Amino acid sequence: MSVPAYDCPDRNRQVLLIERPTGVPQPEHFRLADAPLEAPEDGELWVRNLFLSVDPAQRGWAVDVKNYSAPVGLGSVMRALGVGMVLESRLPGVRAGDVVYGWTGWQDYSRLDASSLLSSVRQPSLPISAYAGILGINGMTAWLAFSNLGRPRPGETVLVSTAAGAVGSIVGQLAQAEGCRPLGLTGSDAKAETCVSRFGYEVALNYKTADWRERLDSAAPDGIDIFFDNVGGEILDSALRRMRTAGRVVQCGTASIASWDPPPVGLRNERELLSRRLSWNGFVIFDHRADFPSAIARLEALIGRGRLVYDEDIETGIEAAPGALRRLYAGENVGKKMIFIG
Amino acid sequence: MSVPAYDCPDRNRQVLLIERPTGVPQPEHFRLADAPLEAPEDGELWVRNLFLSVDPAQRGWAVDVKNYSAPVGLGSVMRALGVGMVLESRLPGVRAGDVVYGWTGWQDYSRLDASSLLSSVRQPSLPISAYAGILGINGMTAWLAFSNLGRPRPGETVLVSTAAGAVGSIVGQLAQAEGCRPLGLTGSDAKAETCVSRFGYEVALNYKTADWRERLDSAAPDGIDIFFDNVGGEILDSALRRMRTAGRVVQCGTASIASWDPPPVGLRNERELLSRRLSWNGFVIFDHRADFPSAIARLEALIGRGRLVYDEDIETGIEAAPGALRRLYAGENVGKKMIFIG
Repeated sequence: MSVPAYDCPDRNRQVLLIERPTGVPQPEHFRLADAPLEAPEDGELWVRNLFLSVDPAQRGWAVDVKNYSAPVGLGSVMRALGVGMVLESRLPGVRAGDVVYGWTGWQDYSRLDASSLLSSVRQPSLPISAYAGILGINGMTAWLAFSNLGRPRPGETVLVSTAAGAVGSIVGQLAQAEGCRPLGLTGSDAKAETCVSRFGYEVALNYKTADWRERLDSAAPDGIDIFFDNVGGEILDSALRRMRTAGRVVQCGTASIASWDPPPVGLRNERELLSRRLSWNGFVIFDHRADFPSAIARLEALIGRGRLVYDEDIETGIEAAPGALRRLYAGENVGKKMIFIG
Repeated sequence: MSVPAYDCPDRNRQVLLIERPTGVPQPEHFRLADAPLEAPEDGELWVRNLFLSVDPAQRGWAVDVKNYSAPVGLGSVMRALGVGMVLESRLPGVRAGDVVYGWTGWQDYSRLDASSLLSSVRQPSLPISAYAGILGINGMTAWLAFSNLGRPRPGETVLVSTAAGAVGSIVGQLAQAEGCRPLGLTGSDAKAETCVSRFGYEVALNYKTADWRERLDSAAPDGIDIFFDNVGGEILDSALRRMRTAGRVVQCGTASIASWDPPPVGLRNERELLSRRLSWNGFVIFDHRADFPSAIARLEALIGRGRLVYDEDIETGIEAAPGALRRLYAGENVGKKMIFIG
């Protein structure tokens, strides 16, 4: 309908998924392409994207395996979250100029409808990237999964895998704020140091060292009350065998398993679950949309009180997107990984 | 103190654990012995046992592996539940003549203190054996685990493993009473028929048939909301892969795994848990003593209204005890297995 106020280019760069990976998506599974811009229809927003999110879950969306969402179609824009500025709104309640967060995909411009919009702010109180990071699904996942499934009580011992990651770095601080003892597992000595110096962990261990299990036993001689797990696999097996009676296991990811085809095997865990009376719950943030506004408000308040810090790892240029998941799974980033394309 | 009113024999037959099994306890792991009778002390009851319970959990108590309770000491009376009549009470609130249920062990007479007493009735409204069966830990487990962890809603599909067993036969009826669709898994065609004709199951499948998974898929084309599992292992793996989003898995036993040493391996299940947002909880009845009176009352009411039937498989003579677990794990019983020694 209306022409945007700024000089709009006539092309939209997009990152297309052109081949299905079996494990972690590599650059060759994507292709950068141009598409014409299309005006929004009634009920839609036209958005200039600014920060494209790079998330572990994208691996699952790229492969053709039953997951908690349908796979991305071959030849389609790679599914991704992102934050941008509304150029034109034909959606009630949202105005041009608003900052919106939602299913933008990896592209310069997006048309979003209500179902693909996760949050919307008129006057951002934090830098815009925060709305795709600490105030996006990472922060909301940390808050909602830890609070509702972890059910922390003061004095409890909390173990977090990928403790320095986009979600884990927040969980450590939330655990500290609740009066728990946060212990972290991470993939390098440098990250372990950051966990302690920056993210509120009492102890953080590099799981690539040979003796991390013994050091965990020393740090948690009475066992673990809450395991907030983003990795699955052998780290999960080890943690389950150290849980206290009536412990809670929050399954937010399975990042340590590179491929589920063929189905991997491991230790049977049902006896641990039973004998320790564990409560093991899977968490997918998109089930909890009704709770997003309250989660954002709670996180903003913690940031405002200086109880919650966060790191962002921002690459520049949409050309960085095809290799971003490979770098994410290689553990090269520190903090929430995003691509700035504004 | 006081001499019991009836002619008391001077010996107490006991079944001692004399060797640790690695799997299912066999007769040679036990020895029948005589012991002198000992008078109760303050705070204790002296009980003539009538029905000794035979439970799958006894296998775990006999082996020397970390479990939810310490192993039975070698040379000690085999740990067991049982129901009996109080001969003499030095415990406030209990009188001679009361029927009590608790940790009697496999022996003729027991001294019980408050910590080893699970329930006590003055005027039994059901046959005494019922207090070690349908109103004992089996019924209370079925009621409390299904209600609190299964969280049934009308119209939901409930799958129960060992559907004809001491707990499963109750869960099927509770599920039916809640307006759910109970589906059962059991170990023979005859038991499957009993599940449907007697225990309220809509469909029951013999898991020893080759096509039970396909028939389960036909019976539950939209998947399973609640899996009440007493067996673990490959049946658990199959059920997890058929759960609906936000399904609940209640882990009450792992009877299909004959030995946990060496640790068995199987399919990794954390991805199923996550992608289906399952809630998987372990249940051990002895955590829930405060809820026993209300559970018994609820079960008595259901029995009174004709909504809950039960079977008992009663052998006679304490000599039957050493071989009872072997017969239990061989699936020879129909309903709650007990030994009458009165």
